[in-house]
Amino acid sequence: MADYRVPLKDMSFLLYDVFKTEALWQKLPKLADQVDRETADAILQECAKIAEQEIAPIARQGDETGVSFNSGVVSTAPGYQQAFNTYAEGGWTALGGDPAYGGMGMPKMITSLHEEMLCSADISFSLYPGLTAGAGLSLAKHGSEALKEQYLTRMYAGDWAASMCLTEAHAGSDLGIIRTKAVPQDDGSYRITGNKIFITGGEHDLTENIIHLVLAKLPDAPAGPRGISLFLVPKIRVNEDGSLGGANGVSCGSIEHKMGIHASATCVMNFDDAQGYLIGDINKGLACMFTMMNFERIGVGIQGIGAGVRSYQNALEYAKDRLQGRAATGAKNSDKEADSIMVHGDVRRMLMNMKALNEGSRALSTYIAMQLDIATYGEGEAQQKGDNLAALMTPLAKAFFTDLGFETTVNGQQIFGGHGYIREWGQEQLVRDARIAQIYEGTNGIQAMDLLARKVAGSGGKLMQIFLDEVQDYIEQTWAENMAEFITPLSSAVADLAELTQYLLDRAGRDANELGSAANDYLHVFGYTAMAYIWARMAQESLGKLDSGDDFYQSKLHTARYYFARLLPRRISLIQAAKSGSQPLFAMDEELF
Amino acid sequence: MADYRVPLKDMSFLLYDVFKTEALWQKLPKLADQVDRETADAILQECAKIAEQEIAPIARQGDETGVSFNSGVVSTAPGYQQAFNTYAEGGWTALGGDPAYGGMGMPKMITSLHEEMLCSADISFSLYPGLTAGAGLSLAKHGSEALKEQYLTRMYAGDWAASMCLTEAHAGSDLGIIRTKAVPQDDGSYRITGNKIFITGGEHDLTENIIHLVLAKLPDAPAGPRGISLFLVPKIRVNEDGSLGGANGVSCGSIEHKMGIHASATCVMNFDDAQGYLIGDINKGLACMFTMMNFERIGVGIQGIGAGVRSYQNALEYAKDRLQGRAATGAKNSDKEADSIMVHGDVRRMLMNMKALNEGSRALSTYIAMQLDIATYGEGEAQQKGDNLAALMTPLAKAFFTDLGFETTVNGQQIFGGHGYIREWGQEQLVRDARIAQIYEGTNGIQAMDLLARKVAGSGGKLMQIFLDEVQDYIEQTWAENMAEFITPLSSAVADLAELTQYLLDRAGRDANELGSAANDYLHVFGYTAMAYIWARMAQESLGKLDSGDDFYQSKLHTARYYFARLLPRRISLIQAAKSGSQPLFAMDEELF
Repeated sequence: MADYRVPLKDMSFLLYDVFKTEALWQKLPKLADQVDRETADAILQECAKIAEQEIAPIARQGDETGVSFNSGVVSTAPGYQQAFNTYAEGGWTALGGDPAYGGMGMPKMITSLHEEMLCSADISFSLYPGLTAGAGLSLAKHGSEALKEQYLTRMYAGDWAASMCLTEAHAGSDLGIIRTKAVPQDDGSYRITGNKIFITGGEHDLTENIIHLVLAKLPDAPAGPRGISLFLVPKIRVNEDGSLGGANGVSCGSIEHKMGIHASATCVMNFDDAQGYLIGDINKGLACMFTMMNFERIGVGIQGIGAGVRSYQNALEYAKDRLQGRAATGAKNSDKEADSIMVHGDVRRMLMNMKALNEGSRALSTYIAMQLDIATYGEGEAQQKGDNLAALMTPLAKAFFTDLGFETTVNGQQIFGGHGYIREWGQEQLVRDARIAQIYEGTNGIQAMDLLARKVAGSGGKLMQIFLDEVQDYIEQTWAENMAEFITPLSSAVADLAELTQYLLDRAGRDANELGSAANDYLHVFGYTAMAYIWARMAQESLGKLDSGDDFYQSKLHTARYYFARLLPRRISLIQAAKSGSQPLFAMDEELF
Repeated sequence: MADYRVPLKDMSFLLYDVFKTEALWQKLPKLADQVDRETADAILQECAKIAEQEIAPIARQGDETGVSFNSGVVSTAPGYQQAFNTYAEGGWTALGGDPAYGGMGMPKMITSLHEEMLCSADISFSLYPGLTAGAGLSLAKHGSEALKEQYLTRMYAGDWAASMCLTEAHAGSDLGIIRTKAVPQDDGSYRITGNKIFITGGEHDLTENIIHLVLAKLPDAPAGPRGISLFLVPKIRVNEDGSLGGANGVSCGSIEHKMGIHASATCVMNFDDAQGYLIGDINKGLACMFTMMNFERIGVGIQGIGAGVRSYQNALEYAKDRLQGRAATGAKNSDKEADSIMVHGDVRRMLMNMKALNEGSRALSTYIAMQLDIATYGEGEAQQKGDNLAALMTPLAKAFFTDLGFETTVNGQQIFGGHGYIREWGQEQLVRDARIAQIYEGTNGIQAMDLLARKVAGSGGKLMQIFLDEVQDYIEQTWAENMAEFITPLSSAVADLAELTQYLLDRAGRDANELGSAANDYLHVFGYTAMAYIWARMAQESLGKLDSGDDFYQSKLHTARYYFARLLPRRISLIQAAKSGSQPLFAMDEELF
């Protein structure tokens, strides 16, 4: 497998050239004190080192060894403890945290690029700090001062990790029917009892304590999602002075044997009268958890990007080295017995596909991170717009980037031919690891419904209109001869997306199954259109810098052209499917399947 | 995992209703003596029993245990020896074999359905008899009488298995550069020396001997593919009387650790002065091997179908059982806390997708098998047409069915949510097992070039025109009000395919990279169009039988409508990509990747 090399230049291009982040940070006063270009660059460079040198090297062995389970004790794979220590000692567990509790307060535009590096290096590893960071976000926003002082500071310090305990055996996508109980105690705490499954990082040996955020119901809670509360449940009790007390009725019953992410512990967690502390208000737990889940959903989207980037780097190295067959235009390498497979159209197709989707996803992900930063640190209308776009695009990030990440890892595996199927080459691990991202944190089908039914239809189309208006403004401002090859197809795509949105909203009133039938295709139409917008912006910047003579901008332009020629047209078939209505899916009785 | 149930009714529908096989067999005199409906039905029913009861049950454990390697000895997983013995004792290893040497002489329309059953039950198991049957075909067609008497009879009897030794470490897709040597001996035999990799079933403990078909070059052979000869090399030498002699300089150096098909032995094979016997003419080995490879390519395509069918059956059972959320149209199951996930649009989409692609692939595969039977047993113009259509559609079968099989196994895994990622549920194994089929036996990129460059362009479009004419005739004959919903979109699809073919042929003369750039998309345009033709024929038969009151025909019609509404439109985006030319792929210098 090729050594992983963080694409720092592309990250820098996005931050400073495409999204003019220096100016943005100046406009967000709360952020201006915390970050500037020098700080951001230093962080990305240092993070690149740890991803390349400390984390990437443990991934292959982690897949082979996996985590092990013995009488409730979960041991991580060789090298994970040391890598985690190095990571925590470097302060990376505090990167996006609230400065009031020891966090570094870095904006999402930086932390999301940091997440991509971790995921390219090793998705399994990334999950331990990733879940902790997400739990930290929920705790910072909804927890009491006392909980934050006692727990959040230690999570930022990397002393303690965290998990997110939602799913039960009978309740996955449908959290309204969970059965875990929380019984109030006289001291203001709660006793938590129930069983949770699929708990990533529920138990492991990387940290001395694990802080579980647990969804449960009070005895008198209303049925359904409105009766769910959120609790902080430490694995080991914490004394008032912050020292560790005794065990807390939390145990790991077993770990799952999975297709991939073998080095990530996926646990059955049993809570037996465990002491817990309420986060946020009673029966408002789902909203508090969604603070974490929205963070994690974007993080899971980034897993798709990270895996795709690694797959591309490996496949490119292999394609350049592997000699097989001759170019259709005549031998390129006539002193050797064959040309490199880079000469073959279908190999080029897969490489360009990966490059265009990886770079497009990174750019779109950075754009979404920018909306989150504006939502967090902005004011007035701009803040509101950022918040709306982030809400609209969170399910897109999760589902679109993970679907594309699966496609690109499969592309990279295919380029290796038979070697792509052999474990030691590492390419097939990327496929297996990337696959989970389409499933967990709300399946991609759930994301599609979140987008179309909750966000788009739920706002009467308003949220989508904000996006469409922004792109329309961009098109009008950018119209110029040398941008026509990008702006013309972008205009069509935006018009079609607007038309499709209205079409589905109109029909949804007459047929309750309309949105569910169209949701998956609609999400992808939105994704390819949004990515076209971002590719146009990247092309525009690159055209402006062609005179620099830097090949980077040539490469960007070629890749943009590939995107518009061969990937944006995918939306056409998707629109046709989305418009086919619910009949093809629902006309047939269940018994006839 | 659901118990596997062979879709015998659908198979019968295809054979007797859609393709009128009874009449066909009567028209093919050489075949009429060998098979009739009664025989065929008995065979399919018996084969279904062995697939369901003997083979399907060993697949899950086979994945966990895999094959093991110890000092050159390869041991198969628990249950494989017994299943193979039962299979061989049942005479199944002789099913498609030449009756002159003990084969049962069943046509491809029967053997391909038998292959689907094996692949649904366990792709790993299917490979042992599958490779032997393919080698038998090559030997029957190109081997000397003596070799056939001595070896073919024992292969049909299930005493001995076979392998196909093509790939070397530096030579996979590009066989012209193999280095394995064959030195002629005074007794007419050859001494074979060289190393082969990725040899499926190269070594195992299921049979007492293994017959390797090995590509090698004579010392004075011309360079490239025109200098390759084919040799039969037994693992253990065979005496004149048919008894086993001594070892033959054939050894297994190691086995690969793979993403899937863990119970299939993928071997490094070393030939060290091994005694071999020429099959066919000197330097014509590739043509002889292609007899086997064309058989195997269709067989690999069927692996995709088999995996998809199993995935569908499992996912359907899960979807009916799993209660989660409520129908958009109101609770369907109000006495329980949730409805089954069958009520959700996206779950229905995936199930209908799998059903339409599985049944469409089975039907198209059976159609291709019919062409092979006509090519083998027919006469005159009909024979020639069958031969041409089989040549045209062999790469389609391999690449299209395996791409769809990967899609449908991923669909089935997705329906399981988190459980789809857990090994014990068995769904993720189907994804891993199906993935190899897109790679081996010539990657799907190679198949696409075989279709577009060799078959379509190589015949100046003639081979494709044969298919287009057949469909055009069908459209003209079938035009009727109640078929309009199928015939109208089919007409458009056929016209577009004809236009795309001509477009690419015109441009190929001006740009040598044109075909390679379009090949993958072209293959899929052809696939969706061909499948639309077959779905129209199935719809037509079903319309005619609606009065029977049998739900089977209602189900077919709904599935046909789904295909035309939501799957055939995929071709539109593919055509646009195929027409985008070579520039998006080749404009960028290799250094800019």
